[in-house]
Amino acid sequence: MKKGRIFSGMQPSGKFHLGNYLGALENWVRLQHDYECFFCIVDWHALTSSYEDTSRLPEHIHDMALDWLSGGLDPEKNVIFVQSHVKEHAELHLLLSMITPLSWLERVPTYKDKLQQLGAQGKEINTYGFLGYPELMTADIILYKADTVPVGEDQLPHLELCREIVRRFNYLYGEVFPEPQAKLSQAPLLPGIDGRKMSKSYGNEIPFAASPEDLRARVRLMVTDPQRVKKTDPGNPDVCTVHTFHKIFSRDELDEIVMSCRNAAIGCVDCKKRLAERMVAALADIHVRRAELEANPGRVREILAYGAERARQVAAATMAEVRRVMHLS
Amino acid sequence: MKKGRIFSGMQPSGKFHLGNYLGALENWVRLQHDYECFFCIVDWHALTSSYEDTSRLPEHIHDMALDWLSGGLDPEKNVIFVQSHVKEHAELHLLLSMITPLSWLERVPTYKDKLQQLGAQGKEINTYGFLGYPELMTADIILYKADTVPVGEDQLPHLELCREIVRRFNYLYGEVFPEPQAKLSQAPLLPGIDGRKMSKSYGNEIPFAASPEDLRARVRLMVTDPQRVKKTDPGNPDVCTVHTFHKIFSRDELDEIVMSCRNAAIGCVDCKKRLAERMVAALADIHVRRAELEANPGRVREILAYGAERARQVAAATMAEVRRVMHLS
Repeated sequence: MKKGRIFSGMQPSGKFHLGNYLGALENWVRLQHDYECFFCIVDWHALTSSYEDTSRLPEHIHDMALDWLSGGLDPEKNVIFVQSHVKEHAELHLLLSMITPLSWLERVPTYKDKLQQLGAQGKEINTYGFLGYPELMTADIILYKADTVPVGEDQLPHLELCREIVRRFNYLYGEVFPEPQAKLSQAPLLPGIDGRKMSKSYGNEIPFAASPEDLRARVRLMVTDPQRVKKTDPGNPDVCTVHTFHKIFSRDELDEIVMSCRNAAIGCVDCKKRLAERMVAALADIHVRRAELEANPGRVREILAYGAERARQVAAATMAEVRRVMHLS
Repeated sequence: MKKGRIFSGMQPSGKFHLGNYLGALENWVRLQHDYECFFCIVDWHALTSSYEDTSRLPEHIHDMALDWLSGGLDPEKNVIFVQSHVKEHAELHLLLSMITPLSWLERVPTYKDKLQQLGAQGKEINTYGFLGYPELMTADIILYKADTVPVGEDQLPHLELCREIVRRFNYLYGEVFPEPQAKLSQAPLLPGIDGRKMSKSYGNEIPFAASPEDLRARVRLMVTDPQRVKKTDPGNPDVCTVHTFHKIFSRDELDEIVMSCRNAAIGCVDCKKRLAERMVAALADIHVRRAELEANPGRVREILAYGAERARQVAAATMAEVRRVMHLS
């Protein structure tokens, strides 16, 4: 017996780094056992902030699907699909737009923030579609009558708006949609190899697709305690990036590792080697799945087509109900 | 050889009165001979100002189709259909929303006017969808690559916005859409039987579906020159509603009618009888077509299904092109 139905989506914006995996995907992989899950690559959403050059969108969609499947999302257990393959998202978005006061969208706290932030990067995104972002997100979720949405803190206002729109729809036309509940996820925050936030724009990321050799090479470049100059100097794990990674990948040996560092019983080079081997082991299944998928280039496309077919069936049933209560054809 | 392709739509808001027919439909009936025409009952648009009670929408759609077909629109010559039957309108609307600056929509002059006007009537329409009205209208038009749009003066700003959006799309993704041109129509303005603007809310309308008997009855109630008390008093056609109608329905006899009124050679009762018979004759074909359609209740639905099928073919081809240039699936 499943606990409920989940919808969650991600914008296709390039290959994952390890932080993306640990920050979101690993949580999904856990959720798939307990919930009926709809995982959606939201390519239309990607247009809200990047509409000017869409040439790499197909590649990004493929990469994201590859990351998800490698990461362990089961395409039989879950419905894995691309938003633009299911046109009902656009139809429901349009219908919801008619009942959504403009002020509800304007007052979403992230709206003005993101406008300013992307504006500072020279992106002109003050568009009608960008304002409608949470409206489209609402359509995404309720099209599948999802009752649960895994979100980070920053997404809570969007989900609150979604619930308001659901209440308004149900009040106007009858009880069609459940009010989805937020499921807050606490993901470990992984720094980049230089200790700052992991981000491709800093060049400090560990690619999710890194081979064992690449992993070892990236770990070798990690910054450690700058006060520890010689191997015989005692180290301070609290300021060491390698240690932050050990906290995630070497949980069962952590006490010993910390002590060895503080006692100068282990040098940074060896400490990094231990971490690298731990990471290689932790990601081994992922690498195997990725290699299998890469050996069969049509497979990802097949999986997405299969997912779209299953998503469309649910979406079509919901829209038939929506049209009926709204007296539309 | 057709002069071009026309798209035009009307919101289904109840049965036509004679002013609606002369103000718009008669023009369409003329245009159908020279242009390839897409005539669309825009039910989704109707939601922008009336989303709270949609229960009469199916009836309004049926009535509008009946009015159009009775009025002389040929369902073979034209593509006659309902907007919500062709889901591509919603998809293109969503895609265009991504490239349309919010300020373009906010500055449409009719936007604030209508907001105020309907607000005064107690309608809460300050919604996201209402702001997007011209965006949806743009999608409607360009989905069929229409190059010509028959509009009244008040619609010119919407069409200018449509052209701006087209230019922006073509600039960003390549030349897909023609810039549609306005075709201004000058329709005779028909007053109601009390001389004010014809409107159902004034109760002064002549229904487009009026039977010959109803027509005669409504004409008998028309206000004439209030200074002409007795039949022997000379009349002033310039202040007479019957005369305004004669100008449209009795053009070839107008000089004689005007003179007979000024000379008191004809009384108002007879003058009205002449008008009524003229109107009955002018609308005779329309009544025959309406009676035929009403005798066959499934026919209107069949015609709309046939129109939707044809519209979808064109819409699907356009969307395939749009998705290709935008790198979407």
